[in-house]
Amino acid sequence: MNLKYAIVGTGAIGGYYGGRLANSDKDVHFLFNTEYEHVNQNGLRVDSVKGDFVINPINAYHSTADMPKCDVVLVGLKSTQNHLLPQILPPLLKPDTLVVLIQNGLGLEGKLAAALPNQPIAGAAAFICSSRVGQGHIRHADYGALNIGTYQGDNQNIITQIKNDFERAGVPFTIASDLNEMRWRKLVWNIPYNGLTVALNTSTDKLMSTPSTRALVTDLMNEVVDAASVCDAIIEREFVDKMLAMTDRMTPYSPSMKLDFDNHRPMEIEAIYTNPVKTALTAGYHMRKTEMLEQELRFIASRH
Amino acid sequence: MNLKYAIVGTGAIGGYYGGRLANSDKDVHFLFNTEYEHVNQNGLRVDSVKGDFVINPINAYHSTADMPKCDVVLVGLKSTQNHLLPQILPPLLKPDTLVVLIQNGLGLEGKLAAALPNQPIAGAAAFICSSRVGQGHIRHADYGALNIGTYQGDNQNIITQIKNDFERAGVPFTIASDLNEMRWRKLVWNIPYNGLTVALNTSTDKLMSTPSTRALVTDLMNEVVDAASVCDAIIEREFVDKMLAMTDRMTPYSPSMKLDFDNHRPMEIEAIYTNPVKTALTAGYHMRKTEMLEQELRFIASRH
Repeated sequence: MNLKYAIVGTGAIGGYYGGRLANSDKDVHFLFNTEYEHVNQNGLRVDSVKGDFVINPINAYHSTADMPKCDVVLVGLKSTQNHLLPQILPPLLKPDTLVVLIQNGLGLEGKLAAALPNQPIAGAAAFICSSRVGQGHIRHADYGALNIGTYQGDNQNIITQIKNDFERAGVPFTIASDLNEMRWRKLVWNIPYNGLTVALNTSTDKLMSTPSTRALVTDLMNEVVDAASVCDAIIEREFVDKMLAMTDRMTPYSPSMKLDFDNHRPMEIEAIYTNPVKTALTAGYHMRKTEMLEQELRFIASRH
Repeated sequence: MNLKYAIVGTGAIGGYYGGRLANSDKDVHFLFNTEYEHVNQNGLRVDSVKGDFVINPINAYHSTADMPKCDVVLVGLKSTQNHLLPQILPPLLKPDTLVVLIQNGLGLEGKLAAALPNQPIAGAAAFICSSRVGQGHIRHADYGALNIGTYQGDNQNIITQIKNDFERAGVPFTIASDLNEMRWRKLVWNIPYNGLTVALNTSTDKLMSTPSTRALVTDLMNEVVDAASVCDAIIEREFVDKMLAMTDRMTPYSPSMKLDFDNHRPMEIEAIYTNPVKTALTAGYHMRKTEMLEQELRFIASRH
């Protein structure tokens, strides 16, 4: 059986991964908002370090009401828009449709499950440098792996099919045995770099080359590892060194929150900061520096 | 006996307090740096909410080598220049000359005592809104009390005389029984407001009116109270509410560190952040949010 895919939120993430699938002849249906007219005319353009391509013609839609029911819904929206999902998703859903949140942060699958208690749900983390650079135009600068983990429902078979589809489309794809641990591991990178590049209006390389912020990045990473350990996600301490070394090797980079901030879009403070801090506190650990970064970001957001 | 005063560092603090003493006919000798020529011609001008005045003629000097030995040396330099004191002070000192550091932060008297092990030393905290607005020109906007505490030597008599002189000059003056506690109490205000107005490029009123930073200010204050308690300085918890309420009543205000930052002068990170964090850590308490603010400020300073 060939899977039918819906892409909800065709931006830096949804546009890249949906584009890869469509480019390998999968049956992919894309939801666009303001870019709908432009993409319908000109297609979806992906400039990628792994080879440029354009999807044209494209199955583009302006509303999920016009879309077919699908087997897999890949959600690439910013998590700040997740309150819209219970309204947007239903036209796409069969009882066994798997909804995959390709998003950053903690607690997002649980919130969706509360609204869709019988729907198969998974979470995915994208290890990618990509950004939307114009109407229907994505630039993929580096990396690109997807890591998926199930949240609700018996999703083993369909996740295996998805893995096959992505691997044939040229996307490195791994299946996590524990979504909670996968989310916490991603936070080890996201919590320091997303917030500090905004709070200090800088980029990853400058944070790393200044001793005081290199120490602060390390402190925040260790705080996430400590928090994870009280939240049933055991992350080995060496993972911190691995993330530091990886970032040292990266080209100077603006994380997604910095791009959101610079482009006057809402920042994902709730998913990346508030939810982890609350979850850890409930489990008995106070993420003090992470909480301070959240407090600073909320101030910055309120004045932006 | 009439006390002879030297003012070392005639800026917002030294200029105001030295000016007040000179304006009540005390024998005051002022050290100026770049402003010397201007002040020698035009005098020292203080625009004060308690009444404007000009000291002209004025005992102005460009080097302590030209100054008379004094009974009291009031140091109004920024603490970032304290490494110069062992070089600047000796011409002013008799064996019983009291050196008073009217400065913010922790550990400054101890460092001076290491260089001048037999010299009487005291510390003072100024509760004042004043700033240097031009050459030899100080603006005093609000408050004005001085609080002094002895550090080294038997200074009870001379401190009583100084208190009399200041009170006659119209300066509210109190004697602290415990300099260490006085320094920590001042930090309850200085640690949140100095650093956060720089890190978030804002003013006290905006920090107070935004819920997330009001919470952060409160967290930092409580952290200082906790740190003080392990450093032999017991501060009642209600002091935090008192400082918050006082700041709510203040006019929107840029603390001294924000003024330093805006005017491209060095910030007093060492005295206000590094020394308290280190002192508390040695005593067994980790000031995590204060340490994070220090780390952010050092990054900001390195890129300014």
